[in-house]
Amino acid sequence: MTTKKNRPEWVEKAPGPGTYRSITKYGDPNHFKHPSDAWVGMMQQEFHMSETDFSVRQHEGNEKVVLNRPPALKSEQIEKLADIVGKANVALDDYSRVKYASGKTTEEMLELRHGIIREVADVVVHPRDKQDVQKIVAYCDQEKIPVTVFAAGSSVNFGCRPAKGGVSLVISTHMNKLLEINELNQTARVQPGMYGPAYEDALNQAPEIFGSKLRYTCGHFPQSFEYSTVGGWVVTLGSGQASTYYGDAYDIVFSQEYVTPAGTFKTLDYPATATGPKINDIMKGSEGTFGILVEVTMKIFRFMPENRARFSFMYPTWEAAVNASREIMQSEFGKPAIYRISDPEETDRGLKLYGMPGFVDTFLSMRGFKPMQRCLCMGNVEGDRDYTKLVAGKIKNIASRYGAMSLGSYAMRKWEHTRYTEPYMREDLEDYGILIDTLEAAVTWDNLHRLHQGVRAFIKSRPDIMCMTHASHFYPQGTNLYFIFIIKMDDPDEFRKLHRGIVDSIMKNGGSLSHHHGVGRMIGPWMEKHLGKEQMAVLRALKRHFDPRNIMNPGGQLGLD
Amino acid sequence: MTTKKNRPEWVEKAPGPGTYRSITKYGDPNHFKHPSDAWVGMMQQEFHMSETDFSVRQHEGNEKVVLNRPPALKSEQIEKLADIVGKANVALDDYSRVKYASGKTTEEMLELRHGIIREVADVVVHPRDKQDVQKIVAYCDQEKIPVTVFAAGSSVNFGCRPAKGGVSLVISTHMNKLLEINELNQTARVQPGMYGPAYEDALNQAPEIFGSKLRYTCGHFPQSFEYSTVGGWVVTLGSGQASTYYGDAYDIVFSQEYVTPAGTFKTLDYPATATGPKINDIMKGSEGTFGILVEVTMKIFRFMPENRARFSFMYPTWEAAVNASREIMQSEFGKPAIYRISDPEETDRGLKLYGMPGFVDTFLSMRGFKPMQRCLCMGNVEGDRDYTKLVAGKIKNIASRYGAMSLGSYAMRKWEHTRYTEPYMREDLEDYGILIDTLEAAVTWDNLHRLHQGVRAFIKSRPDIMCMTHASHFYPQGTNLYFIFIIKMDDPDEFRKLHRGIVDSIMKNGGSLSHHHGVGRMIGPWMEKHLGKEQMAVLRALKRHFDPRNIMNPGGQLGLD
Repeated sequence: MTTKKNRPEWVEKAPGPGTYRSITKYGDPNHFKHPSDAWVGMMQQEFHMSETDFSVRQHEGNEKVVLNRPPALKSEQIEKLADIVGKANVALDDYSRVKYASGKTTEEMLELRHGIIREVADVVVHPRDKQDVQKIVAYCDQEKIPVTVFAAGSSVNFGCRPAKGGVSLVISTHMNKLLEINELNQTARVQPGMYGPAYEDALNQAPEIFGSKLRYTCGHFPQSFEYSTVGGWVVTLGSGQASTYYGDAYDIVFSQEYVTPAGTFKTLDYPATATGPKINDIMKGSEGTFGILVEVTMKIFRFMPENRARFSFMYPTWEAAVNASREIMQSEFGKPAIYRISDPEETDRGLKLYGMPGFVDTFLSMRGFKPMQRCLCMGNVEGDRDYTKLVAGKIKNIASRYGAMSLGSYAMRKWEHTRYTEPYMREDLEDYGILIDTLEAAVTWDNLHRLHQGVRAFIKSRPDIMCMTHASHFYPQGTNLYFIFIIKMDDPDEFRKLHRGIVDSIMKNGGSLSHHHGVGRMIGPWMEKHLGKEQMAVLRALKRHFDPRNIMNPGGQLGLD
Repeated sequence: MTTKKNRPEWVEKAPGPGTYRSITKYGDPNHFKHPSDAWVGMMQQEFHMSETDFSVRQHEGNEKVVLNRPPALKSEQIEKLADIVGKANVALDDYSRVKYASGKTTEEMLELRHGIIREVADVVVHPRDKQDVQKIVAYCDQEKIPVTVFAAGSSVNFGCRPAKGGVSLVISTHMNKLLEINELNQTARVQPGMYGPAYEDALNQAPEIFGSKLRYTCGHFPQSFEYSTVGGWVVTLGSGQASTYYGDAYDIVFSQEYVTPAGTFKTLDYPATATGPKINDIMKGSEGTFGILVEVTMKIFRFMPENRARFSFMYPTWEAAVNASREIMQSEFGKPAIYRISDPEETDRGLKLYGMPGFVDTFLSMRGFKPMQRCLCMGNVEGDRDYTKLVAGKIKNIASRYGAMSLGSYAMRKWEHTRYTEPYMREDLEDYGILIDTLEAAVTWDNLHRLHQGVRAFIKSRPDIMCMTHASHFYPQGTNLYFIFIIKMDDPDEFRKLHRGIVDSIMKNGGSLSHHHGVGRMIGPWMEKHLGKEQMAVLRALKRHFDPRNIMNPGGQLGLD
């Protein structure tokens, strides 16, 4: 194990302006979360690294971004776009074109650190409002200029990569306001480029800002919360960490307004309808391939943090944790908000990383909660105070029936502090050649173990790799599995091969290709095999309708082209 | 008021075989539910009817159905269809062609009683299985023969009227089995033609039939429960009386298999996915215009009737009932299953019809619950025992805060006995020239009063009409309004004009065209104006994809053609 004296030198400085690192670094440029000593010790042990391996940082990406690809658009086309949005809202420089072409996949980060730049747009455009978007889409449709939407750029599947050049349309620069709270209907009308924290803060402060009687919450808290937008949640079908109670992004959309080459429309404001297939739902998950979300009305919820009931448990086995979770989700006493179970590898690594003292390990083992068998479960309940008490009590009873030991609220409180900051560590690890990435899938209860074992077996068939799995979004019919893998690797091609092998393995073992990460261009190639050609043909028919000239986010998004 | 001695002579005999009445009569041919003496008294008073008006039944529809329209299909086409399904599963007789062309609209009933027959199919075909359906669709697509699906025929919007002739495809004759219960996933795989009671009974008896550990319920109980099918619920977007807790049909579908001219496919079995727009949802509500639902996997729920908590309340005003209901739906302590509020006219007529003694009226009035102001609320809570207690208690607290008086569980128990049988009265009333019909709409909380007042004002602008309204499906964002109107009228054209005027009024006052009755051919003409041409174009694009030759339920369904 490392000790304080040989702690690696982590970068503690915001990336230089214009550098690759300023694009790859997650989140706030001035915020850092370094791996703990326990983390470093684990890496050294798993990857047979010496202290020397942690002495020199590599491929830090501190060079200035140089693209050297003149925009392919004609100058009159660029002028026309500038006429629409104003000169200040058009950028042609190398840095902007690369920045607004990049998401947050490990693969992109790795490539950018190596100075490898994939497809970029010719021009970056920041529309000021819906009218700008309408004019841009109409003009680009006429000129057959591709348009790729960029909001916060947290995509983990090349969702904002302008595969065919054209325009990067940055929706978060101006279109980021909360327009209205409708307290009777408990809805909020919001522009799609609004970031999570600004949205949530405004809802929490609704009495002060909007004069409402009550405070509200958005109910949607993905790990990317601080660097993702409301519109991004909707068009990529995201899920927040509390989705078991509040629902996925799909569920909390009330109505939407889209600008498409086939026209602009707003879906109707009804709590339910039986007027044929629901256009409001058809648009969700279209990932910019049908058109551009310009306004969305979201369901909101009463903000009652004082009622939160936290819990955590240790289960003796993964089977017990899964069975108890299923029982909880099907028992009809209400639902927890956050609810997570970690598999044995994640549990044990987690305990080590968060500094469990040795005597606790001994104590747990003596009580029958053995390493590489025991599983951690944690979560909370939100809502009315008596409801949260009831649900938390029921969960405790079921946990106890399945042999779990209550750990109180400690683990959950600890997790809450780091719920959005884990991605910050990625930069530090990559500085020393260690890659961390995730893939996730939805699965029914009856296929959970096959998927878990199958994908783990594939990952573990490779030496010197860590694989941790949790389930974090629960339904009466099943859950998701979130596979985290960590490996010492520096070659983008080798990494790509491993990553795509895991996607293959998820599909072969009956998982969905994506539970809440969307499809983008990365998962696109699997779509037809996954959905079948008949269902893929439905998506393509919709695409042809909305976007007959294929200008909206073209080049593999959703596997459409 | 009428007394026992002059009670009208209600029909107490099953309709003769082959008669119009055997088609128009609701439900079990041998079951009757006659209007009470109070009902008759109310009709006499409202419609200025004398006892003589209740002495002669009119247009009873006891004549044999005569069509006199030879099938337009070629004999080799009919032979080919018979080759596919077997001769016994093909019918060309007048009666079958009319029966399987008819739904249960008041308008159709009135017309059939007058011997007016609208469009019928040339041939009635009863497929035995999915393979039959595939062959029929392929053949009809090749020959451009229209196909209109018929399941239980409870449509209230000409949804099963073969507007372009061709084939009536009767899905309920053979394709009506519960195929499998998956207890881990809590799902049931079922054929679409299975009727509500058979489905629910099988789920309740799952331990005996399928060897499951627990008993289950389908959670979907529309008023038409006894004469509607699982597939019908799904393709028309029905809602059950307990939808506030279990969800609408839309919500309880897990996956579906469809046969369309563009191919056969089954949507994937996942509790959630982020793999682009959800084909599983796109198909719901397609009302047979995209293809034919041949198998559906439904979410099921634990059957725990012993935990049910019933409640009923009297609110001093409609505003108080609405405000309390909104508070209940937004307070996040869980949801009631059945939950209904009646407006003042429905409340007062209901109290009279169910025989409230005069002293109760006096008592209520003295307590401030005045006639034509007070509003009845009733419902129940289902689920875990402690959950039902908690939710029922919370509802009681809120009701009390809004000035309501608890009436215990009596009204609810009384309602349960008649929950499926109200439509039986329609036949008796029509025998004496009285028509009863309903229209319904979804609405957000902020538009509820405008819709209620606007539609009521339109209906009441006509003399001698009763109009009762309730809300019976609740969401945090709003509810539905269900308008019941009763009038003495015999002319189909006059009735049509009134009925369509109410649809107009719903639309003008901002209600959805349908909350759970679907669209069919009746509401079709409003669809484009309601959704807007851009959204209607999306539905048409899907239609062209699935059914390029327009053979699936053509002729106005969903307003597509």
